[in-house]
Amino acid sequence: MINVRTDLAIEAREMYIKKHNRNKEIDGVIVEEEQEGDIKFSTVKIKDEEGAKKIGKPIGNYITIDIPEFTVYDGGIMDSVANVLAKVLERLIHVDEKKTALVVGLGNWQVTPDALGPKVVEKIMVTRHLQVVMPEAIDESVRPVCAIAPGVLGITGIETGEIIKSLVEKVKPDLVICIDALASRRVERVNRTIQISDTGISPGAGVGNNRKEISEKSLGVKVIAIGVPTVVDAATIANDSIDLVIDELISKVSSGKEFYNMLKDIDRNEKESLIKEVLSANVGELIVAPKEVDMIIEALSKIIANGINMSLQPNMDMEDINKFLS
Amino acid sequence: MINVRTDLAIEAREMYIKKHNRNKEIDGVIVEEEQEGDIKFSTVKIKDEEGAKKIGKPIGNYITIDIPEFTVYDGGIMDSVANVLAKVLERLIHVDEKKTALVVGLGNWQVTPDALGPKVVEKIMVTRHLQVVMPEAIDESVRPVCAIAPGVLGITGIETGEIIKSLVEKVKPDLVICIDALASRRVERVNRTIQISDTGISPGAGVGNNRKEISEKSLGVKVIAIGVPTVVDAATIANDSIDLVIDELISKVSSGKEFYNMLKDIDRNEKESLIKEVLSANVGELIVAPKEVDMIIEALSKIIANGINMSLQPNMDMEDINKFLS
Amino acid sequence: MINVRTDLAIEAREMYIKKHNRNKEIDGVIVEEEQEGDIKFSTVKIKDEEGAKKIGKPIGNYITIDIPEFTVYDGGIMDSVANVLAKVLERLIHVDEKKTALVVGLGNWQVTPDALGPKVVEKIMVTRHLQVVMPEAIDESVRPVCAIAPGVLGITGIETGEIIKSLVEKVKPDLVICIDALASRRVERVNRTIQISDTGISPGAGVGNNRKEISEKSLGVKVIAIGVPTVVDAATIANDSIDLVIDELISKVSSGKEFYNMLKDIDRNEKESLIKEVLSANVGELIVAPKEVDMIIEALSKIIANGINMSLQPNMDMEDINKFLS
Amino acid sequence: MINVRTDLAIEAREMYIKKHNRNKEIDGVIVEEEQEGDIKFSTVKIKDEEGAKKIGKPIGNYITIDIPEFTVYDGGIMDSVANVLAKVLERLIHVDEKKTALVVGLGNWQVTPDALGPKVVEKIMVTRHLQVVMPEAIDESVRPVCAIAPGVLGITGIETGEIIKSLVEKVKPDLVICIDALASRRVERVNRTIQISDTGISPGAGVGNNRKEISEKSLGVKVIAIGVPTVVDAATIANDSIDLVIDELISKVSSGKEFYNMLKDIDRNEKESLIKEVLSANVGELIVAPKEVDMIIEALSKIIANGINMSLQPNMDMEDINKFLS
Repeated sequence: MINVRTDLAIEAREMYIKKHNRNKEIDGVIVEEEQEGDIKFSTVKIKDEEGAKKIGKPIGNYITIDIPEFTVYDGGIMDSVANVLAKVLERLIHVDEKKTALVVGLGNWQVTPDALGPKVVEKIMVTRHLQVVMPEAIDESVRPVCAIAPGVLGITGIETGEIIKSLVEKVKPDLVICIDALASRRVERVNRTIQISDTGISPGAGVGNNRKEISEKSLGVKVIAIGVPTVVDAATIANDSIDLVIDELISKVSSGKEFYNMLKDIDRNEKESLIKEVLSANVGELIVAPKEVDMIIEALSKIIANGINMSLQPNMDMEDINKFLS
Repeated sequence: MINVRTDLAIEAREMYIKKHNRNKEIDGVIVEEEQEGDIKFSTVKIKDEEGAKKIGKPIGNYITIDIPEFTVYDGGIMDSVANVLAKVLERLIHVDEKKTALVVGLGNWQVTPDALGPKVVEKIMVTRHLQVVMPEAIDESVRPVCAIAPGVLGITGIETGEIIKSLVEKVKPDLVICIDALASRRVERVNRTIQISDTGISPGAGVGNNRKEISEKSLGVKVIAIGVPTVVDAATIANDSIDLVIDELISKVSSGKEFYNMLKDIDRNEKESLIKEVLSANVGELIVAPKEVDMIIEALSKIIANGINMSLQPNMDMEDINKFLS
Repeated sequence: MINVRTDLAIEAREMYIKKHNRNKEIDGVIVEEEQEGDIKFSTVKIKDEEGAKKIGKPIGNYITIDIPEFTVYDGGIMDSVANVLAKVLERLIHVDEKKTALVVGLGNWQVTPDALGPKVVEKIMVTRHLQVVMPEAIDESVRPVCAIAPGVLGITGIETGEIIKSLVEKVKPDLVICIDALASRRVERVNRTIQISDTGISPGAGVGNNRKEISEKSLGVKVIAIGVPTVVDAATIANDSIDLVIDELISKVSSGKEFYNMLKDIDRNEKESLIKEVLSANVGELIVAPKEVDMIIEALSKIIANGINMSLQPNMDMEDINKFLS
Repeated sequence: MINVRTDLAIEAREMYIKKHNRNKEIDGVIVEEEQEGDIKFSTVKIKDEEGAKKIGKPIGNYITIDIPEFTVYDGGIMDSVANVLAKVLERLIHVDEKKTALVVGLGNWQVTPDALGPKVVEKIMVTRHLQVVMPEAIDESVRPVCAIAPGVLGITGIETGEIIKSLVEKVKPDLVICIDALASRRVERVNRTIQISDTGISPGAGVGNNRKEISEKSLGVKVIAIGVPTVVDAATIANDSIDLVIDELISKVSSGKEFYNMLKDIDRNEKESLIKEVLSANVGELIVAPKEVDMIIEALSKIIANGINMSLQPNMDMEDINKFLS
């Protein structure tokens, strides 16, 4: 079956509402829109098990920041987004400013659209070791921060959750922040949306998601997840194209008629084999991404690292942080 | 209109035959299949203006090597393909072995699937300067070879054909070999086909092809082109998916009926807006490529550089060439 | 003989003054110091053939900008240096703002400390092609700019000067700006100095400099050169260390004595073989560079590209340029 | 004090012998030379505490493979070295072929000469996860192998030894193989020597070595270390140059005389300030490496990964391993 999983709560909610033709909010779910300067962001609050079941995500908060049509060179917009990200993170981090944070960059640094997490880690202001190595370089107001890019299962042979769990047991942080590149269901969200949640990373309800849980439940410590959709599966494009034609045709014929049933039939039984025919299954995993993906991932990793650095060091401003990083 | 251009003569021929429901070869065109060990290759020979017009490519020879389902690590298959490529090139290069060759790597080295040409150039055995700089290092049997990766219009502001023409006038080579990453119409050809032609690179008959001609006509010297399709346009995937559904439906209804006409109508008038809806036009150029594109392009560039090096230096074997390159 | 060549006029002048124990300025040479905010820069003006002969550089202006102890992350200092660079370039560019400029990034993009030129080219605002491709995107006030990174002799087999000359004849720019990574004589200048000159790039008076001239004389069009020393030759470190010990010892003994003569003797006759012993000549070219050379070259290329972009487009501010580049 | 530490046992032994003017082997130490085809390798066996103290390395075996003057393209020599490495590793690995191995790539992947370990990890045949994910892909004869590149303290804020220890406790391997880029004392060993030892990585006797121990003692499991010197510290070049001059001069004057004492005095008291003057301390860590360091590190990582893969999978040949890696 074609994977219609999405990693974004806001998309899962849209899909549920569309599928059930609802004209009001899902029970157990609250959605709020906010704006800060030019930057819009919305919060999907899943309040109870009913909402969680319908959306297919755990109870918690999912904030989605929309990145305006931006350019990888436009420092002004990048700073605005980083500031909103810092503000959103501060709302979710209720951990004393002296407590240790571990930043985890998930993904494979050899595959550009999957390298977002490792690239953020490179830009994090790491301080945990300084109290030992050069205590004179930092004062008490600096939070101890450490970071790791553990790699992916296919390269390490070790479940990523295992690596993180073993490290959490050794380092004993009070907060874990995970960054991950996501797959989106919709082309227009690619590299344009940042989702922040306080539920960690959990195995989706959908098919094909073999990631293990990285959450407060599995690690015993608060976990905040930051994700950006950086690709769309090529099968999704094929699937959406077929849906669109069928929907278009269905809208033109009366239900119950011969054509109508033929169309419904394709929808149910033949779609997957049509998609396979388009994609000629033997070529391995095909992904859809913008041509300039290298530059875009670099810019996004800067935005996210800046946002994290500001939120983790409430006693420093961006200038201090940059001096430190040099 | 959706671009149905293909850079591959073999695809253009397939499309013509399919469109016109031919059951015999196109007039003015000869196709021959050959095999060398495990490697299959076929030659499309366009013999006259009639064939050229139908296929939309200039008169000449177009050889297509099929790369077997290969792995980027399998040195054995890589060597076999390089050997076949060398053999094919030798058939087309009728230039005395002392005469100078210029190898041109087209494409943008910052965009991985477009970096094939520049990556080949890095691996070419370049010898033209040695007669001056260190004449003792080479003997008479070595052909003078030079190479350049001129960049792309968007980065240089200079039409690539202009750069090459100015260089050809200065260096006066007897042979130009161009390497370029192509777009394919079909997913299964991506990174699996090498096309070699003796017609140079010419503006396609299709829409959207704004490349200037790089050919014997424009440069005044023999031009051989080597191309590998490395991406499919995301719009092609959407387009093919829609075609497939409509074809499937058309095959089930009688022509002339209401639904039949509705389908034909979509085919003609609505397809493009459906595709735009799927791809939400505002995100820039979307391309479809395998996830491991970096490793694959590196392997392909090695195969092609080896093939070129062997064909240009008929008096050296691979071992001598490798020693030289070190 | 050990190469004591320097690409920097300011170093050549220092070396001359030191060697000849001068206590006043060299005849035919004027030196001026200036400051702009935190950024110091000095101009060595070689006024006549006498000055040119003594310093070993052609008649013309050589401006040296000192980069303050900077961090690759400190955007503020980077902007200040780019602004001073723009100002200095504007003094030297007396070419009408509508006339075409060609920016040339010299060096090898595969060797990090030599990749400065190609990396600047990637960030140049290129406009020359737009009057043809999309005339509506630019107005008349934009100067036509094109750019190329021609590669190095060992990779192309073509003398770089030949490539540029052929391109200048084709494109007919009114101004050429070359960017090159230089070798320094002194460790403390590495990545800390930008030299701008209006004399182009000329074969140095010293040994080992086989670069061909790229100048108004060779190209027939005004040439401005921008250079940054990014490495020191390992032999220079060895040489300087030996000099320092010998100087130290000489300062302690009386001239004419046995030991004094022994020291002078080493200085003259044995130094080179000592250096070869330290460097065990067989390992190829050894260079000395900071460990973080990748990040530093990236930052420098941004500074220089910004400076060039601002100076070439006097009717646009940085924000407009960035929007354009996106 | 200038750091005269070396990571190579063979160099430490040479330095001891030279310093003490010994003309026979150090007590407690055995040295054996071997040759396999063109490849020479030697074993320094430290047998007891006396030998360990003199050489400044723990009791154990240190094998040094000399890489012949090789070229990064010469596949033949690369294969020969990989084969010798596999053979040497097999001598040291006395762990049942079904038992799990963990390969650890130490170093910073952003700094080319330090990226050797992470680059080896990318090429390791990782199998541990397959028994769960796709048990049909492997048979019983395949050893479970996992791998990690944990990063460096400055980027993670976590002592590398801590990360590895926490992972060893979780994964419980029976063997750990660490790969690390070393600093050499001698330019001619750079990228030309592979040291394999069964003592793990231990804090050197010298100054400036703040690496924590990664050994059987600290991890509770057998540890094999593979190291290649990839840089020389610039201070070493300066130091060696000064030593050489002073040695040269000392050899020419009689001991006890005024000059002799002056020279000894410089040796003891002034050397460090002379070195600092040459290197002008403020520029950060300067390293000496060959210009083509990127290509060389890539080639070395392939050799080492091949050697490890063959030694860990005694039931597979290189062809099987390559097929698997694809």
